[in-house]
Amino acid sequence: MPGGRRRHGIATACLSGLLEDKLAAAAAAGFDGVELFVPDLLGSPEPPGDVARRCADLGLAIDLYQPIRDVEALPPDAFAAALRRVEHAFDVMERLGTTTALICSSVDPRAVDDDELAARQLAEVADRAADRGLRIAYEALAWGRHVNTWDHSWRIVELADHPALGLCVDSFHLYARGGDPSGLRDVPGEKIFFLQLADAPRLDMDVLPWSRHHRLFPGQGDFDLTALVRHLDVAGYDGPWSLEVFNDVFRQADPGPAAVDARRSLLGLGEALAGLPAVDLGGTAFVELAADPDTCREVTDALAAFGFARTGEHRSKPVGLWEAGGARVVVREEAAPGPAAVAALAVRTPDPEALARRGTELLAPRVPLPHAGDEAELRAVAAPDGTLLFCCPERPEPGADDFWPGDFRPTGMRPATGQVLGIDHVALSPPFDLTAEAELFLRTVVGLGAVGPQSEVVAPFGVVRSRLFASPGPDPVRVVLSSSLVRRGGWAPGVPAPQSVAFAVDDVLAVSRAARAAGLALLGVGPNYYEDLAARGVEDVDGLAEHRVLVDVDPSGGQYRHVVTPVLGGRVFLEAVQRVGGHAGHGAADAPVRMAAQRRARIEVSGR
Amino acid sequence: MPGGRRRHGIATACLSGLLEDKLAAAAAAGFDGVELFVPDLLGSPEPPGDVARRCADLGLAIDLYQPIRDVEALPPDAFAAALRRVEHAFDVMERLGTTTALICSSVDPRAVDDDELAARQLAEVADRAADRGLRIAYEALAWGRHVNTWDHSWRIVELADHPALGLCVDSFHLYARGGDPSGLRDVPGEKIFFLQLADAPRLDMDVLPWSRHHRLFPGQGDFDLTALVRHLDVAGYDGPWSLEVFNDVFRQADPGPAAVDARRSLLGLGEALAGLPAVDLGGTAFVELAADPDTCREVTDALAAFGFARTGEHRSKPVGLWEAGGARVVVREEAAPGPAAVAALAVRTPDPEALARRGTELLAPRVPLPHAGDEAELRAVAAPDGTLLFCCPERPEPGADDFWPGDFRPTGMRPATGQVLGIDHVALSPPFDLTAEAELFLRTVVGLGAVGPQSEVVAPFGVVRSRLFASPGPDPVRVVLSSSLVRRGGWAPGVPAPQSVAFAVDDVLAVSRAARAAGLALLGVGPNYYEDLAARGVEDVDGLAEHRVLVDVDPSGGQYRHVVTPVLGGRVFLEAVQRVGGHAGHGAADAPVRMAAQRRARIEVSGR
Repeated sequence: MPGGRRRHGIATACLSGLLEDKLAAAAAAGFDGVELFVPDLLGSPEPPGDVARRCADLGLAIDLYQPIRDVEALPPDAFAAALRRVEHAFDVMERLGTTTALICSSVDPRAVDDDELAARQLAEVADRAADRGLRIAYEALAWGRHVNTWDHSWRIVELADHPALGLCVDSFHLYARGGDPSGLRDVPGEKIFFLQLADAPRLDMDVLPWSRHHRLFPGQGDFDLTALVRHLDVAGYDGPWSLEVFNDVFRQADPGPAAVDARRSLLGLGEALAGLPAVDLGGTAFVELAADPDTCREVTDALAAFGFARTGEHRSKPVGLWEAGGARVVVREEAAPGPAAVAALAVRTPDPEALARRGTELLAPRVPLPHAGDEAELRAVAAPDGTLLFCCPERPEPGADDFWPGDFRPTGMRPATGQVLGIDHVALSPPFDLTAEAELFLRTVVGLGAVGPQSEVVAPFGVVRSRLFASPGPDPVRVVLSSSLVRRGGWAPGVPAPQSVAFAVDDVLAVSRAARAAGLALLGVGPNYYEDLAARGVEDVDGLAEHRVLVDVDPSGGQYRHVVTPVLGGRVFLEAVQRVGGHAGHGAADAPVRMAAQRRARIEVSGR
Repeated sequence: MPGGRRRHGIATACLSGLLEDKLAAAAAAGFDGVELFVPDLLGSPEPPGDVARRCADLGLAIDLYQPIRDVEALPPDAFAAALRRVEHAFDVMERLGTTTALICSSVDPRAVDDDELAARQLAEVADRAADRGLRIAYEALAWGRHVNTWDHSWRIVELADHPALGLCVDSFHLYARGGDPSGLRDVPGEKIFFLQLADAPRLDMDVLPWSRHHRLFPGQGDFDLTALVRHLDVAGYDGPWSLEVFNDVFRQADPGPAAVDARRSLLGLGEALAGLPAVDLGGTAFVELAADPDTCREVTDALAAFGFARTGEHRSKPVGLWEAGGARVVVREEAAPGPAAVAALAVRTPDPEALARRGTELLAPRVPLPHAGDEAELRAVAAPDGTLLFCCPERPEPGADDFWPGDFRPTGMRPATGQVLGIDHVALSPPFDLTAEAELFLRTVVGLGAVGPQSEVVAPFGVVRSRLFASPGPDPVRVVLSSSLVRRGGWAPGVPAPQSVAFAVDDVLAVSRAARAAGLALLGVGPNYYEDLAARGVEDVDGLAEHRVLVDVDPSGGQYRHVVTPVLGGRVFLEAVQRVGGHAGHGAADAPVRMAAQRRARIEVSGR
């Protein structure tokens, strides 16, 4: 990594819990330091010296004491009161053994628009800091009363011209105001005292609530943080990369996994800055579904109707291999009852060990997979939602055995030819409070990128947001993440939220005919849907209705034509999709109709 | 009610579930009609005629078919395609037996800024509608491409001058754009075809996501809907009041209670329009706490330490009456184990039966309270969170018996005098998805009003939003509603969220001394908090620390000085509060410190 490994920091305000919970989580995730958020200290019964010892024991530096508010550009009496607060902060910092304090630009209604006064008062504060061996990092809040851009804060720091006064750059405040980070290249590196990193989705809303509730870890939002850290590299900034992410979800999440997610975001940023080549993926090797014996049959019957054959039986486990065209599905029978689930996604890559190692370096736990002597050694890491990522070798020459010759005893069965081409995508549905974490895992560990913006549909039981992620190249690995606001109470059909596996086909009508002939109850929707399709100019709706095909149409006329099963085994459905005219979506537009029909199919079967 | 009772309607888009779930819920809540949201129809397997019969069987009119999008101000080929969609909509409407369709202003990028063209094309659509006995209500979307204010939509309707073309007024679109509703007085009533009502919090964000996720039922937000319906009354509008509320929470909630909440909002709006006098409350009569035998003692020990005496024993139930000054707490022993809880709030009012009847009229279920012959008949209705509202008579002359002479056998014990003045407030913590409903109940049934804006604090385990509601008058009933984003998983100390009862005292230091002398372990926080208070100019922090007093300071120097217990019985804490200098808050600012200390107190006792 150019410039050596950065020190990684995190503000205690990012995490949930008591101060001791936050510090323990930050240390366990491998952070080097923390920004101590004053309210966390006020809520702790430990005096500053004890907090300092706790941090030292955990191997954590206290990189920043923050925030000190409303100090500069004040009338004399207000400034005098501010100095009393500042001196108290300095007392505490001395006991903490930390040297840098954050002062954020005034929001005090008494503050005046006078850069000279602001600079003079900050210089006085810096003088007092220097007397104690401390220093001040001055930050422009995006909603500062008069100072709300980084370049304005820099003008004031220049004007003050004090060695103990420098800049704190906060990526949120910079990007939220549409700031240009390139000017930071011209700031002397030693005047940039601190860097606070936060990503965020682009939201057209007031900056203050945007900042306080919707920040994300780098790589989870829309800001170009790689450009920012590159400019700061050029400037010569050599302080920590420190996360300051205010997010309603992270703030109530278990701080352990949240801190891991946070640190993964900085490791990903380091990779992006280093310009490492993208993960080299050669498509989806297989998807593994797990189901209890009662529901396994539902899943395998549907696979068979889609033209899959059970080509192999695992030698040592109750696991079947199902194949059709280029698609493979592994179905694992679970002894414990429970809903069916996508247990694993297996991707092909030239160097599986390298991909698994990369996952471990990005803090995804390696999952040891016991295997008998002649069975293939599969490498796997765990995703945040518990699904496994298998790292498999590239497909061998056609006709040759694949990578698990010894694992499966051939059944002699062969799939029907020509219907299913391969796996189009897998759709996962992590709980809403794991979605950002799941997305970061896909982006960093698996190396997928978002295809288009987030879709938002009003489903029968609430708003569902979904987004498609894919690897580059001709045979992409595609994963859809869907989430809905957590459902509560008795009014919650379909919890946990359904997952799905979609197979790419080249003639969805033929697949539908064959599947129904094989006895599969494909999901049907009523005539209202097809009459509406016709009114919107879709042709041959009678044929579509007869074959139970749902159709999403994109603005350029591309079609996503698919047939769908009811929800099987309480959680998973299968679909066969034919993309026409380059449709790049994932069936979000007809999701409400599909979900209503799946709900009705469930009522028909189970009465509820 | 002036102008007679309005017809009440609701858009099916407001509610969760399949179309049949939504219709059943709307009918059960007493709505007269629905707006049929087209996606709900598309997701239904029932053809329009069957849907019409279902509505008729439920006693629901279909007041509106909506929406038809992107019809006007289009180039010829796009308009021709729009007419095909429109004709299909008219076919469906005929089968539904509904006569009014909503057309919302174009967002189509091909739409041009040409009022004449828009009017001409709408007139053609209206012509076709009139041919079938139908009519068109035209609505300006706040994000319409060219038409996005109600007065602009009215200019186009005037220009078109067609009897089958009128206006749809939507309160969200009007107020979100800062529109002035008073001009509606001058629109002929017969040209206002439809009124869609939605409230919303004032949010500084883009109107489209604001509209699609954050609408609320009337009385739950910041819009002056009473003014709007008054102007429409003057104009002579006599159509339904119909709710169109897109809200992420309601859309995933059980539609039964959501529809009741919705209809209550219209009943409340009717009351506000009629200018009925405010509910006449004479203060808090008592608070009832329920606790199992194991935790009951924790609560009563704390009451005793605050100077309460057990003055009465209920004759027929394991219920004790505790009194101190003007404060009364009823403690009910529950056989079933579980956390302690605020079971009821009892208010005083000159006519208890009238208040209970008012609750019933506002759809709050009356709760029959069995009582023996010589026991007082208490009237109660249930709040959405299950707590009861008791409606009690005014306090009799001092010295006389209160309203339950026969219920409680006097114990002969008398409370210590002079410490506790009365009940300051009760703090409830409904789950986040019940908060709007709980707030509407307080505003309509109990007649409380919000005191100041919502507070938002970053508590150790997530963001907590809280708001104080109070009745007018010298002895207010005060209720705080707090909510946090729902907590999930194992990282969830304090679920369900704590509730509290705060007693008004005139000398919190004396109360603290007496309580601690009586053995109560008042909550203590560490020195960091008090050092910070001193740095902010609060005096005598040593005395405050010694007496375990927390202090919130308002901008004008008013203080909220309070002592707090740990969380008792797993859920409820008690506090004694002295308000100084007119502090009108509820201790939100020091809530994070208080919660951290309560968490630590719990760890000390239970180890987790």
